[in-house]
Amino acid sequence: MSFNLDHNPSAAVLIIGNEILSGRTEDQNLNFIASKLSSLNIRVQYAAFIPDKIEVIIEEVQRASKRFNYVFTTGGIGPTHDDITTDAVAQALGLEVIEDPKAALWLERHYGGKDNLTEARLRMARVPKGAGLILNPVSAAPGYKIENVFVLAGVPLIMRSMFDDVQRFLIPGQTIYSLTLRCSTGESKIAQLLSQLQTEFPEVEIGSYPHFRLSGYGLSLVLKSLDQDKIHLLAKKIQTMISSFGDTAEVLLD
Amino acid sequence: MSFNLDHNPSAAVLIIGNEILSGRTEDQNLNFIASKLSSLNIRVQYAAFIPDKIEVIIEEVQRASKRFNYVFTTGGIGPTHDDITTDAVAQALGLEVIEDPKAALWLERHYGGKDNLTEARLRMARVPKGAGLILNPVSAAPGYKIENVFVLAGVPLIMRSMFDDVQRFLIPGQTIYSLTLRCSTGESKIAQLLSQLQTEFPEVEIGSYPHFRLSGYGLSLVLKSLDQDKIHLLAKKIQTMISSFGDTAEVLLD
Repeated sequence: MSFNLDHNPSAAVLIIGNEILSGRTEDQNLNFIASKLSSLNIRVQYAAFIPDKIEVIIEEVQRASKRFNYVFTTGGIGPTHDDITTDAVAQALGLEVIEDPKAALWLERHYGGKDNLTEARLRMARVPKGAGLILNPVSAAPGYKIENVFVLAGVPLIMRSMFDDVQRFLIPGQTIYSLTLRCSTGESKIAQLLSQLQTEFPEVEIGSYPHFRLSGYGLSLVLKSLDQDKIHLLAKKIQTMISSFGDTAEVLLD
Repeated sequence: MSFNLDHNPSAAVLIIGNEILSGRTEDQNLNFIASKLSSLNIRVQYAAFIPDKIEVIIEEVQRASKRFNYVFTTGGIGPTHDDITTDAVAQALGLEVIEDPKAALWLERHYGGKDNLTEARLRMARVPKGAGLILNPVSAAPGYKIENVFVLAGVPLIMRSMFDDVQRFLIPGQTIYSLTLRCSTGESKIAQLLSQLQTEFPEVEIGSYPHFRLSGYGLSLVLKSLDQDKIHLLAKKIQTMISSFGDTAEVLLD
């Protein structure tokens, strides 16, 4: 199904690192980035958790940078042997890696002088040639933007601090309106009529999210569109349909 | 870098649905599946969040089923218009979709007789030809296994209830031993020596996870291997190295 929402900018998020894949650490970055982009009406269309393997990172960056307007990576830009994101991103885009003098200066200041700027620390000044630095107010080592790829830290506190500087590069999409109906009905009861309504309202994306908890079940219907009137019209139709089944559908304010 | 851990079975997880990508809902399935697989010494090597778009699901299932020993999908097997996972999985594997009589019977019982088995509900009995059903003790509509792909519900409570039945299909890997060193040191201080130790101990995977919180910073080093002795030997070496810098490295029990 195609919605006109698809005209808004798209984004992919690549979460790099073994620790999340092992179930050891719960990721805190995807939800943050998705929420921020959502508030700019940029739609995350793909997100992947991938290991610290250079060939995997190269493939994913290449694929995502061709398909989506923006790509965000988190993780793998620290000083250790498993920090290979910069090399992977450079290779993915066919660029060489250089040492950025401004980044080196920031690191020098942060670590208290040139003498403390070890080889490992200086690795964090390496960027693909042509990259624009992204400020790291927490620990100096910068992120960067290269072509449509934003390379950010993996540590949540640092990644979040970088995001303020990221936003100046992003062009927001058209406002996506959204309305949620919290329904007491079962999904299977209304599925067929919902499908007809989806055909009738192609410019509204209808998401159907059932929940089963120990306390009982229910359904959230999320309507999204660039056209607010169409959302309200469709919501009314759905409410009428659901009450005709003896169930309730209540509008939640976002 | 190649570790002998790579001989253990690998898995990919595909989380299907727009609601996570929009930042609206936090995913609860990936971490659960990754932890369960990890306890079976099966390594999740790729996880992706993808939208309810049939061509995207087809591509991802094809790619993952070729590359990994096991593939798990969650979401998109309910009764509504946006539940397209079964059609996508069947197309990805070149199979036709059939209505499974056993699944239909389970649904008939759950909904209280044939009369209540609407077209929409019966959709949940559709599986790719040759699929083995996976029990859903919560709401009857089954998951299934087809080739190396496990198709599970998206609602966390239901997905978890299905996982008990999934486990009989999985062949555990060799035991992966793991040890965590909680260090008071900064990552950049030990990066170079750590890199040398990684070269010296190719059979141990060293993960380096810095954390910055408002309370301060620190570093977790996670050592993983099939060889427990090598882990202990390496841990001792790292502890000696870190104390020589005047910092501490304490073994956390898993």
